Amino acid sequence: MLPLLLQSESHIPLYVQLRDQLRALVHSGELRNGDRIPASRELASQLGVHRTTVATAYAELEAEGLIEGHVGRGTFICGAAARQFSPAPRSNGNGGSARWESLFADERGDENLSRLMPEVPAGALAFTCARPSEEFFPVEEFRRCANAVLRREGRRILQLGASDGYESLRRAVVAWFREEGQTVGPDQLLITDGGQQAIDLISKAFLRAGDSVAIENPAYPGAISILAGARVRTLAVPVEADPARTGNVGLDLDALENLLLQNRLKFIFITPDFHNPTGTSLPLSQRRRLLEIAARYQVPIIEDSIYARTRLRGTELPSLRSLDTHGNVIQIDSFSKISFPGLRVGWCIGAETAIERLRLVKLLTDLHTDQFSQATLAEFIERGHLKRHLARMKKVHRSRLEAMEEALEKHMPEGTTWTRPEGGMTVWVTLPAGFDAGDLLIHARERGIYFVPGRYFYLQNPQPNTLRLGFASLDEKSIARGVQSFCDVLKAELRKRQRGVRDEFRGRVALI
Amino acid sequence: MLPLLLQSESHIPLYVQLRDQLRALVHSGELRNGDRIPASRELASQLGVHRTTVATAYAELEAEGLIEGHVGRGTFICGAAARQFSPAPRSNGNGGSARWESLFADERGDENLSRLMPEVPAGALAFTCARPSEEFFPVEEFRRCANAVLRREGRRILQLGASDGYESLRRAVVAWFREEGQTVGPDQLLITDGGQQAIDLISKAFLRAGDSVAIENPAYPGAISILAGARVRTLAVPVEADPARTGNVGLDLDALENLLLQNRLKFIFITPDFHNPTGTSLPLSQRRRLLEIAARYQVPIIEDSIYARTRLRGTELPSLRSLDTHGNVIQIDSFSKISFPGLRVGWCIGAETAIERLRLVKLLTDLHTDQFSQATLAEFIERGHLKRHLARMKKVHRSRLEAMEEALEKHMPEGTTWTRPEGGMTVWVTLPAGFDAGDLLIHARERGIYFVPGRYFYLQNPQPNTLRLGFASLDEKSIARGVQSFCDVLKAELRKRQRGVRDEFRGRVALI
Repeated sequence: MLPLLLQSESHIPLYVQLRDQLRALVHSGELRNGDRIPASRELASQLGVHRTTVATAYAELEAEGLIEGHVGRGTFICGAAARQFSPAPRSNGNGGSARWESLFADERGDENLSRLMPEVPAGALAFTCARPSEEFFPVEEFRRCANAVLRREGRRILQLGASDGYESLRRAVVAWFREEGQTVGPDQLLITDGGQQAIDLISKAFLRAGDSVAIENPAYPGAISILAGARVRTLAVPVEADPARTGNVGLDLDALENLLLQNRLKFIFITPDFHNPTGTSLPLSQRRRLLEIAARYQVPIIEDSIYARTRLRGTELPSLRSLDTHGNVIQIDSFSKISFPGLRVGWCIGAETAIERLRLVKLLTDLHTDQFSQATLAEFIERGHLKRHLARMKKVHRSRLEAMEEALEKHMPEGTTWTRPEGGMTVWVTLPAGFDAGDLLIHARERGIYFVPGRYFYLQNPQPNTLRLGFASLDEKSIARGVQSFCDVLKAELRKRQRGVRDEFRGRVALI
Repeated sequence: MLPLLLQSESHIPLYVQLRDQLRALVHSGELRNGDRIPASRELASQLGVHRTTVATAYAELEAEGLIEGHVGRGTFICGAAARQFSPAPRSNGNGGSARWESLFADERGDENLSRLMPEVPAGALAFTCARPSEEFFPVEEFRRCANAVLRREGRRILQLGASDGYESLRRAVVAWFREEGQTVGPDQLLITDGGQQAIDLISKAFLRAGDSVAIENPAYPGAISILAGARVRTLAVPVEADPARTGNVGLDLDALENLLLQNRLKFIFITPDFHNPTGTSLPLSQRRRLLEIAARYQVPIIEDSIYARTRLRGTELPSLRSLDTHGNVIQIDSFSKISFPGLRVGWCIGAETAIERLRLVKLLTDLHTDQFSQATLAEFIERGHLKRHLARMKKVHRSRLEAMEEALEKHMPEGTTWTRPEGGMTVWVTLPAGFDAGDLLIHARERGIYFVPGRYFYLQNPQPNTLRLGFASLDEKSIARGVQSFCDVLKAELRKRQRGVRDEFRGRVALI
């Protein structure tokens, strides 16, 4: 039975309601490629609507490439997930694809592997991203750096190299930390293919199926998915991001202590700075207490610092690694939030023994990170470009964050709250209780507005009334316009919802 | 008890014998970092030699950084494995490193994770490599390609992209196959961080701890290590590379059928072209029979084609994928043997369902492969540079292979055999039975000659009398000189060995 709710009193045609709700089920992952949906006659009778209503909705979804009819077999979802690159699984000319499927047919938790963002068409106002805007990329400076390194050391760059990273980039990263007052020993550093690979290498090096790890809830879906893929038990530490509810912003450390009392944890996985999705940062006192707890229970911390250098206002906070006196932290970092995410280059820092094991795992995983990008980035840092670029982007992003906050203040209806991040790239919005951001997205999309419903980020107890707005990828005007449209849609839905409550009492709702 | 064998009648001083044998034990992995070795007094009494002999050997090994004394605790191995990048595990300034070690203290099979090649000092004659020689890299053409793509599409390259690969490279690879008469559908291709990552992704996507996989024996250590790391049972299919012994070269398909009868295999992992380390290729009839067997038992094949485009003579053979009519093959390929291994770019090709799952795993592993290298390589292919470079390298490598064969013919003592590869980068040598290539390496190193003992490549039944000689990285003169020196050392050792047998009868051998 599909969770469909058609409101016959609504001004929205029934076939549009049905079409949009089915689309939302696909985008939220509740319907997946290969899933069979009821025949139009069958669904029409279940919903108590005319068969033409269902047929029209199906026809539109088929035109969109989201569903596909097979004569004599039924109608199937086929356009879920990253449709532009990979169509639905189907038997290929060679046949035999069923054999491959049987290899992973026994998988559990595969839904966790594909927490994909809603697809955004070109020209839409997309608040979906947490990435730097490419319009400011200093491509010309980067190009000159690439030329310089190829002229100077092209053969060395293009030949196989060391698994812990290209020497000039290792030096540049160590020097960068030194300038920030941090010491990084040469054997405490491993260059990785971005922060995502760092998480994956840590999982491979230290975790086994059945191990337990504590992680924020909500959290970065890419981290949740890696742990799910490794069949690791993820235990949720609540992040409170709604000051209207508790007066607190930050990690629930009492809940963490409770987890530690009851479970043998392998790690605590934490993003203390501008946590994705909520944008919140751990206050200094909480950082100290977290380290104290971790040391007491002898549980190492994985500190995801990928947003740490994106602070836009407020006071710098020391990293967990820099506060730690027990060698108990592995810090993950990357260039992708401060320069060019298309280059997959990041690093992790930790105790020598941990890094040595990670280096070995890295060697076996892909020998080493691409050296052309490593060498060019090293030159880019050495020439001071990264510092200048970072300073410039902070101005750009600060102004965009302020534009978003201004628009939210102006247009958001009563009963909604949102975080006030001091950096990062996202604001976390909480709608009135009982409201579903996934439903809201269906209507916002019709106005060309996209965002990520909060449920994408939860490992448990999803709060359907939350959503993430990214502010880094749109200019101030688009943000102002987009937030206003978003709020218009939201207000309209809130009104409809009040009407809908009345409708329900009139018994006019078809619920399957 | 250490397997040490000192010959007091030898012209080699006892302390040199002891030093070299201890070093060999470290390099072969029998002694590992953190292993305690006996106190000099203790070892001297066990060996029946003067304490000064042991102390002198220890002093030299300590000077080399291979062992380390700790007052009151003893002497420990500390310089094993890739010493130049990562010194021995030791407690860091922060303390706490023991905690990290405890995370992987329960590991089994970790020795398989580190099948590392012998370290080679600069200036040595290294037959250790299986990689293209950087002296011929067309760096200037590559630089121009990098400029062109950054000017044309810099922002797109440097922004996040698609997990299945950068569009222009995907097009270039498909066009390349089309030119070779092969059809690759857009959804049958996934760009990876080189062939190594392709193997790793396949392991992650399809294998679980306890699964069984058939793989050649000997095989590429990087593949063995990935499977060992994933706790997969590897079952050996013998590769016969010594025609002097059986008259055969190739895979033992009867042994494979036996494995299939007795085990539920997830995969057959095969390198049909210029197999590393032996250099042998599977004849067409064996390819057909292998596919027939795999289809009959419904077991997919992973075809590692990384050397397929390095054919130097003889007739082209069709890939398993192109012969397969059951959609039963995933083919792994890479740019690293035909152009620039420092760029980590390769790909795999297979049935859509398999590729779609691999794409998802790739997405979670590192989002996507570095786009700067992908875009530049695409341009490099499109401008025809790769084709020209490949043709040139074939001439270079053919001449080097011929130089090696000429030198082997001329200098190799009786009782030795070696393969006659038609491509690839390595020749596989079999010494007289009972002879240990690891021992030979100790003496060859003193003459500045390096090679890889065969035992690095075996997953079971290691043949200690085998070794691999790479011919691609040295010019013809160095090859001639190096092979001659190698043969001189080998002949000297063969003579000593005959003497040693006599010594043994005189009861002058200390065996611990």
